[in-house]
Amino acid sequence: MIAIDWGTTSFRAYRLDAHGDVRDQRSAAAGLLACGGDFESVLAREIAGWDDPVILMAGMVGSRSGWREVPYVPCPAGLTEIAAGLVDVPAARLPGRWLGIVPGLADHPAGRSPEVMRGEETQVLGLLPNLPGAGPHTVCLPGTHSKWVQVQDGCIVSLRTAMTGELYALLRRQSLLAALMPDAPANGVDDPDDAEAFARGVAASAGPGGLANHLFGVRTQGLFGQLEAAQAPSYLSGLLIGHELRGLQVPSTGAAIHLVGGSALTARYARALALLGAASVIHAEALTARGLHRLAQARGLV
Amino acid sequence: MIAIDWGTTSFRAYRLDAHGDVRDQRSAAAGLLACGGDFESVLAREIAGWDDPVILMAGMVGSRSGWREVPYVPCPAGLTEIAAGLVDVPAARLPGRWLGIVPGLADHPAGRSPEVMRGEETQVLGLLPNLPGAGPHTVCLPGTHSKWVQVQDGCIVSLRTAMTGELYALLRRQSLLAALMPDAPANGVDDPDDAEAFARGVAASAGPGGLANHLFGVRTQGLFGQLEAAQAPSYLSGLLIGHELRGLQVPSTGAAIHLVGGSALTARYARALALLGAASVIHAEALTARGLHRLAQARGLV
Repeated sequence: MIAIDWGTTSFRAYRLDAHGDVRDQRSAAAGLLACGGDFESVLAREIAGWDDPVILMAGMVGSRSGWREVPYVPCPAGLTEIAAGLVDVPAARLPGRWLGIVPGLADHPAGRSPEVMRGEETQVLGLLPNLPGAGPHTVCLPGTHSKWVQVQDGCIVSLRTAMTGELYALLRRQSLLAALMPDAPANGVDDPDDAEAFARGVAASAGPGGLANHLFGVRTQGLFGQLEAAQAPSYLSGLLIGHELRGLQVPSTGAAIHLVGGSALTARYARALALLGAASVIHAEALTARGLHRLAQARGLV
Repeated sequence: MIAIDWGTTSFRAYRLDAHGDVRDQRSAAAGLLACGGDFESVLAREIAGWDDPVILMAGMVGSRSGWREVPYVPCPAGLTEIAAGLVDVPAARLPGRWLGIVPGLADHPAGRSPEVMRGEETQVLGLLPNLPGAGPHTVCLPGTHSKWVQVQDGCIVSLRTAMTGELYALLRRQSLLAALMPDAPANGVDDPDDAEAFARGVAASAGPGGLANHLFGVRTQGLFGQLEAAQAPSYLSGLLIGHELRGLQVPSTGAAIHLVGGSALTARYARALALLGAASVIHAEALTARGLHRLAQARGLV
């Protein structure tokens, strides 16, 4: 089968064998925004030469701005419920193939705003066989919008989002604080990590005043020589991640938190968690292909 | 005398009589950023025809990026201490005049980041004679960076900042949330006010999850039809102001809070405070000229 991880700004394709192991993989600058709405042509081009009969796709490709809007499956949901929500998509340019898109998940917690994700549910399905025991487990997928997922007995029970990565990017690149920092690296590239400044930011998040007050401290500490310009991005990152963890009341249990994502970012979260007294385990990022294979199996496609 | 309120993006000049009443006033698109470093020429041009011997200036004109960096005066500080911190500036193009710049204020609270302001101290000095009794009084000057000032016996005792207005502008105009809202009005112009959505945002700020989580609710409530696109800016504003008030633990006393600023924004803060059970009094914005006159008197210049 072919497993596709298709997001707003990225496209990754995996060719899997019968065991779900990756035999070949490709990535392309063919995120949804770059497709001009013609998703079928882009897909046919990017998987040219791969003739596997089943193609399963996860991510924002199933959103309103993607190929086909696939309704959210409500929590709690495990492999069975998510597989049941797969939607097949006709594709005239790919005759003889079965094409499907994985649904996202929604959580409707009482008395708070709804929560949704698309793509991360497939990563969590890929992760589940690696988790020790039935749980409960807390899984964190940090990023532009960090996802916090509670897992129990193979089901995703609940879901929380924090727009931490987006706040970081806005404040780092567009705010008055940005003028006090070295030039930002190209979009999508991490700032150099200053562990000491990061830890100070995490610690500062515990103080009184709230986030909008703490952010001003990036400016004033620079003004009074308490923070070097080169340290300011790491301090800001620590402040925001610290607020995310405290706001979401992590750690809520004594168990280790499972981190999934790029190595630089998961390492930062692991350090922030350690500063708050929580253990964590960092998992490999490439879990989407495995999750898609499990879904195809559950649906009897492979 | 001539009183000048000179900020990063605005310039206002007032011609005052011996009682400190405004006889004439001008404003110009001559904020510091528009001056190309030649502040003296801009000032001479903007006050052409006014021959008063004393010219006193407040605001970011006294910052590192202004005409002359004037050291911060530490809190607690009242009229006497701030007047003592005035710095005179030579200006060859304005012969026979005395030109001075008002210092900003700094607060160094134990165990937290320093706090600073430039310009707001002069507004507070203008407000003081209007406050009932010796205090303590809480004064809030909402804006890009909201300032919360504690006043006692004619002195500014402490100072806190919240970057609420800047967060609003970034999230309203540059974030993924912006795509879900109607086009933003021109910079510096307020969104239409939806009091019901604003109140819902203030209420949501009290829930668990933290700001970075609550912000995602703007997206998901829209997704599930719980929030109209046109309501989203007011909801976002309520969320951010609610977090500001709760983060700074306002109200901390039972006394009414004194709001100084533009009418639309102070009205929003008054409503948010009322939702949190706090009374407030809205004061006229044009207090800078009066504060500058009081400083000139204290220094024996008029």
